[in-house]
Amino acid sequence: MSAGFDRVALIGLGLIASSMAHAMRWKGLAGEITGYARSAETRETAAEIGLVDRVCESAAEAVAGADLVVLAVPVGAMGAIAAEIAPHLKPGAIVTDVGSVKQAVVEAVAPHLPAGVQFIPGHPLAGTEHSGPRSGFATLFVNRWWLLTPLEGADPVAVERLSGFLAGMGANVDHMEVARHDLVLAVVSHTPHLIAYTMVGVADHLRRVTHEEVIKYSASGFRDFTRIAASDPTMWRDVFLTNREATLDILGRFTEELFMLQRAIRMGDGEMLFDYFTRTRAIRRGIIEAGQDTAEPNFGRGAPPPEAAE
Amino acid sequence: MSAGFDRVALIGLGLIASSMAHAMRWKGLAGEITGYARSAETRETAAEIGLVDRVCESAAEAVAGADLVVLAVPVGAMGAIAAEIAPHLKPGAIVTDVGSVKQAVVEAVAPHLPAGVQFIPGHPLAGTEHSGPRSGFATLFVNRWWLLTPLEGADPVAVERLSGFLAGMGANVDHMEVARHDLVLAVVSHTPHLIAYTMVGVADHLRRVTHEEVIKYSASGFRDFTRIAASDPTMWRDVFLTNREATLDILGRFTEELFMLQRAIRMGDGEMLFDYFTRTRAIRRGIIEAGQDTAEPNFGRGAPPPEAAE
Repeated sequence: MSAGFDRVALIGLGLIASSMAHAMRWKGLAGEITGYARSAETRETAAEIGLVDRVCESAAEAVAGADLVVLAVPVGAMGAIAAEIAPHLKPGAIVTDVGSVKQAVVEAVAPHLPAGVQFIPGHPLAGTEHSGPRSGFATLFVNRWWLLTPLEGADPVAVERLSGFLAGMGANVDHMEVARHDLVLAVVSHTPHLIAYTMVGVADHLRRVTHEEVIKYSASGFRDFTRIAASDPTMWRDVFLTNREATLDILGRFTEELFMLQRAIRMGDGEMLFDYFTRTRAIRRGIIEAGQDTAEPNFGRGAPPPEAAE
Repeated sequence: MSAGFDRVALIGLGLIASSMAHAMRWKGLAGEITGYARSAETRETAAEIGLVDRVCESAAEAVAGADLVVLAVPVGAMGAIAAEIAPHLKPGAIVTDVGSVKQAVVEAVAPHLPAGVQFIPGHPLAGTEHSGPRSGFATLFVNRWWLLTPLEGADPVAVERLSGFLAGMGANVDHMEVARHDLVLAVVSHTPHLIAYTMVGVADHLRRVTHEEVIKYSASGFRDFTRIAASDPTMWRDVFLTNREATLDILGRFTEELFMLQRAIRMGDGEMLFDYFTRTRAIRRGIIEAGQDTAEPNFGRGAPPPEAAE
């Protein structure tokens, strides 16, 4: 257990925390795993499926004696939970979080934590559209980025130890400055999600007049949006409220760009559209080359093989 | 070969036509398959891989004697190819197309075709982000919708025969009125594609200042957009130019909706965001229930299983 911790506390038991529990057990990265969730139903489910070694009735109880504390609650709930656990943290413990926004989490959490506790904010770029304690699986983080945004004066030994632990679950660990993280994520994740939500909302509006046609014929394009837009509403509400400036900045650029394409359609400017679409194709290649997705058509989803389809 | 045709001519040898060739052979739906593509390179590739029984040097040659002619070229090229083949069509032949827009295709193709030839416009809701004669596979249409938009006065026997042939390749055949098709597709496919192109364009713009971070960290959200935006540029240029009115209509609704969400972010209206995101989640469920996608997380793409990831 060179990369592991004796006692790990998971605060929040959703997709990320439950995947961490599975991954830690798979790789033998924790002596004991405690867990707490605000919802009694979630705690009961976690106990029922044996997600962690000990489901606790309070966050304070879960973090007592823990060497690593993982805050895996929506970004908007981080501050309150930090205040709650602060007096119960073991001296020398490492506290990290898995929030999709980092500046707001740092501002909400850091002031509560006592000296001697190492707070190292983090964000795994991994997930599915499912949520809850049953949605986790051990390989969620394999070959995915886990960004750490250590604060000024962070203990390099603690950062190294946490990095080794995350790498032990299969993640590729990288460091990034807090504000830069929030800008990059606004581009690669937050704004795309908002746009997907919007497009699905438009379709829902129209659905009422097209008699389920929208759902029925969603095979091309639209269904990929719905997957993105099926993610946890609480998590995403908090992301947009707390990464407001960067999201609004990218949204502004998006609208400008969209209006330019819209104008090209209205004016019948085929050359402009063709050039634009050719350029975006190259970006896709870059992503495949960077190993962030499969080159298999349709995500390898496609149709069943001939024998299965008979 | 009850559902098949003696001679089928494929005009255009891209993803759809090459998949049809594979599917027809898999299911024994054609006596002879001829093929033509404008590009000499495509014709050579088709001959090299034995995609069809006979690669022809002209569209006229390919359609001569064919019982079924499939126009599988970009929507903007349909009119010219229809004019070219018209004098060479066999009396009683069925002509169909696979264009993503139907009103424009009807207007471009129908005037050229001689009496006695049955023109039945069609559109398979199937595809991947790949293109060209090597991209086809036999199961592309299995359990996918193939919409037919028969014109007023279409011969019901011919429509029935074509439907049986398409069903033979595994497709679920449905009929729809031409204008309605173009509106529904603007919602479920055309506008989502334009939005994906736009978002990828915004990221490309920013990429120059973020040193490849956008590509590197595209794991969540953004990469699904890039897949959509990697589709064939010529095809999509023609879609937007020819389904202009419906696309602009839906884009207008999209922008209104986006501005409303953008305002909620700016004002910090978490309740509105939460309600909106909860509603879109229900639409996703509708799509899964309609059998148009898998409920597996992340399209079943996810990570490798534990043993493979070791």
